[in-house]
Amino acid sequence: MNVAAIIYILGYVLTIEAAFMLLPCITAIIYGEKQGIAFLIVMLITLAVGTLFRRKKPKKTGYYAREGFLIVALSWIAMSAFGCLPFVINGDIPNFIDALFETVSGFTTTGASILSAVEPLAKCSLMWRSFTHWIGGMGVIVFLLAIIPLAGGQNIQLMRAESPGPSVGKLVPKIKETAMLLYKIYMVLTFVEMGLLIACRMPVFDSIAIAFGTAGTGGFGVRNSSCGEYTPLQQNVITVFLVLFGINFNMYYFIIAKKFKQAFNMEEVKVYLLIIICSVFIIGMNIMSHFPSGYEAFRTAAFQVGSIISTTGFSSADFNAWPWLSRSLLVAIMIVGACAGSTAGGIKVSRLIILLKGIKKEVYKIFHPRSVQCITLEGRPISEVVERTAFVFFGAYIMILLISFVVVAFNGYSSTTSLTAVIACISNIGPGLDLVGPMGNYGFFSVLTKSVLIFDMLAGRLEVFPMLLLIMPAAWRHSGDKGRRKGKIKDEFN
Amino acid sequence: MNVAAIIYILGYVLTIEAAFMLLPCITAIIYGEKQGIAFLIVMLITLAVGTLFRRKKPKKTGYYAREGFLIVALSWIAMSAFGCLPFVINGDIPNFIDALFETVSGFTTTGASILSAVEPLAKCSLMWRSFTHWIGGMGVIVFLLAIIPLAGGQNIQLMRAESPGPSVGKLVPKIKETAMLLYKIYMVLTFVEMGLLIACRMPVFDSIAIAFGTAGTGGFGVRNSSCGEYTPLQQNVITVFLVLFGINFNMYYFIIAKKFKQAFNMEEVKVYLLIIICSVFIIGMNIMSHFPSGYEAFRTAAFQVGSIISTTGFSSADFNAWPWLSRSLLVAIMIVGACAGSTAGGIKVSRLIILLKGIKKEVYKIFHPRSVQCITLEGRPISEVVERTAFVFFGAYIMILLISFVVVAFNGYSSTTSLTAVIACISNIGPGLDLVGPMGNYGFFSVLTKSVLIFDMLAGRLEVFPMLLLIMPAAWRHSGDKGRRKGKIKDEFN
Repeated sequence: MNVAAIIYILGYVLTIEAAFMLLPCITAIIYGEKQGIAFLIVMLITLAVGTLFRRKKPKKTGYYAREGFLIVALSWIAMSAFGCLPFVINGDIPNFIDALFETVSGFTTTGASILSAVEPLAKCSLMWRSFTHWIGGMGVIVFLLAIIPLAGGQNIQLMRAESPGPSVGKLVPKIKETAMLLYKIYMVLTFVEMGLLIACRMPVFDSIAIAFGTAGTGGFGVRNSSCGEYTPLQQNVITVFLVLFGINFNMYYFIIAKKFKQAFNMEEVKVYLLIIICSVFIIGMNIMSHFPSGYEAFRTAAFQVGSIISTTGFSSADFNAWPWLSRSLLVAIMIVGACAGSTAGGIKVSRLIILLKGIKKEVYKIFHPRSVQCITLEGRPISEVVERTAFVFFGAYIMILLISFVVVAFNGYSSTTSLTAVIACISNIGPGLDLVGPMGNYGFFSVLTKSVLIFDMLAGRLEVFPMLLLIMPAAWRHSGDKGRRKGKIKDEFN
Repeated sequence: MNVAAIIYILGYVLTIEAAFMLLPCITAIIYGEKQGIAFLIVMLITLAVGTLFRRKKPKKTGYYAREGFLIVALSWIAMSAFGCLPFVINGDIPNFIDALFETVSGFTTTGASILSAVEPLAKCSLMWRSFTHWIGGMGVIVFLLAIIPLAGGQNIQLMRAESPGPSVGKLVPKIKETAMLLYKIYMVLTFVEMGLLIACRMPVFDSIAIAFGTAGTGGFGVRNSSCGEYTPLQQNVITVFLVLFGINFNMYYFIIAKKFKQAFNMEEVKVYLLIIICSVFIIGMNIMSHFPSGYEAFRTAAFQVGSIISTTGFSSADFNAWPWLSRSLLVAIMIVGACAGSTAGGIKVSRLIILLKGIKKEVYKIFHPRSVQCITLEGRPISEVVERTAFVFFGAYIMILLISFVVVAFNGYSSTTSLTAVIACISNIGPGLDLVGPMGNYGFFSVLTKSVLIFDMLAGRLEVFPMLLLIMPAAWRHSGDKGRRKGKIKDEFN
């Protein structure tokens, strides 16, 4: 295990986080808020620790998948641990576990909140809260890869561990350029949304925060009503961008590269849009009687479907009060999630496509046992490994969901509350149904439940495996220690 | 495809079903019920069709996995289609789809009922209803294998397709003897329960019906209150047998063969019992205040946990009124189910063990990419194929669950109703929560929903694959037709 390299990269991650904390500091200056001092203090501490970690450049810069996964898991935990301190210090969220929950929820772009009202918070805290979504959306490691030349090492492992989707590829031959390209697309889309919202007369502060929340598919708002107070036009702009940020970023790359045929022929994107259209239609029809006009019903349905399938979690209405068909359908698309290679959470459309094709292949094999088949996605064959990993991912995902559900059930709230709280956290959505519905919050859960949900949010954002190996001591053992390991494997697997 | 062999075996299945219908006929004679005539009529029709199908002995008796799966799927559908006719004819369940639902629910040992009260039914109808559980529990094909010498053919394929569990093995070298041994164990256990219940002063009719329901892990009762009216002693006897019928029958074989060390060292059985003990403890503590004494609380908890984990679905109390923790826990163990190689449904404990070990192996592989590992169950290595099939099974199971949930949601009932209805059917349990709770029934659902749930029950009992290939036209294509098939594969999988 290359411990030196891990610490070194962690140092970079913390340094970048410190730099990102400039934004809340500036916000505090603009609004003259004394709560901003907390951000300044934590920024300096984070910078100091980061610099300390970066002091010793590792001799060996090479690392493998295991270090990649570990670096990513530890980075996200460190980022959250430092990122939550300003809330504790300035008193906006005095309880540490609550502040940690809120920050993990921010970075993982979940948007589940322990706050019953956000408006009492300082502007700088609100800005940081929304900004964590933006940072977590594309990922801080990808950011790191984009700006810093990490010598040697298979950096693709880092990117793979942090980016969502069954198989992460490079857009262009070089990792650094791929990462930079992704961030450029991400930034341009964010700024376009910001500009459009400002043009639609949304206050600048709200426009920035909402754009961050949409871009990262997070869902923290700056109003108690989430997006309920914004005008229909503003909500429609948000709806469009909710859908756009759920699309595989490869499509935008193809558009930039003028490969329009490839761009508009992506299997995953087509299925994703089809699910959206069907869901909006069904929910729109179902909630018709709750709204003054059909347009309003479909508009609201589109907003909510976009918000849920992209795993953002903004709300423009209390869908907890909608008919059960609509509520059940929203739960179903919560689990689906958006496209791989986007900033969204959930199981991902492409993974479901692989699963369905894999099941079909397996059934086919019963009839034609000697057939050798290869399933394809986007016209390219999917390797056996990617296929198997998709099934194992799905199994692990559902297992974590089941076990978490049992733990959360100990709080004694309704099954709907417990189940949708877990689904909303592991899929990085935010609001669930019943007590954790769009008008509710997560503050009432026990510390144990909050800890489990923190794990679930991280597991959801990092796609299960990095977090699983953190809790699997067997995997940690030194690989050089062959004799001991051999004996251990037997213990662990039998 | 060996169509002649399929029809021939179907003929045998129907002939056996006709023979089984003697029991309700006898019941009708004893109680002097004119509704028994319906059973006589249908028995003769079934016998006629069965004999017709058996007239032409197939030239080739060999068949492969595909024929095995098809035979099993078609047998179960044919059995249900004929088995529901007496209810329609004698007017106890006049609606065909309702009668079919009830009969499929019986054969698949689900125990979900469309009836709001069972006591108005004729005794012969009630006996047939409970007897379908017993027939379906061990499986009619296994019965066929036990009594009829099917020349040639890989009969293990038939057994594999009908028997639950990730890998079905032979207890003794010959299939016929394995099947006979299984049925002997099954019968002895059933008769012991019957005898004990009669000894505990339960009416003979009830004792027979309840023993059938327990043995098949079905859950149809003969009282409106399910098992609520029986004495604590009688309920305790049922509890013990609920747990016993959820145990892998291999254990009983080991006991008969005096291999006690193997019998009491089965990994799956230990995990199964551990889950039961923990669940009973937690639920017992949780419902304490609802009962006059701690003993009553734990006794009732044990009954309900045994009933749900064995996927039987009897109830001695309205658990729909219990605290949410207990209800949520019951939902969780609904999905788990009991041991493979028992008469129970659900995902099965051994399959979950394989899944967890498979996930562990996969995470381990991240750290030690070149390690070659093999997971074991009951001390024996599990082949890659069995492991992969377990993951695909799990994926297919959850997918069917999700899709069914969306369809059922269209009825507009609560998410809890829709979700637990689907889980209770695909896991072959019977009662769910809310409207389909132990005091509710499935009669109010639409015809579409009932059809989907019929599919789910069959998919659950036959472990997904036989039913999946029935709805997959690609798999049906003639394997001799090579040129056409090749082109088709491409179409189907891309």
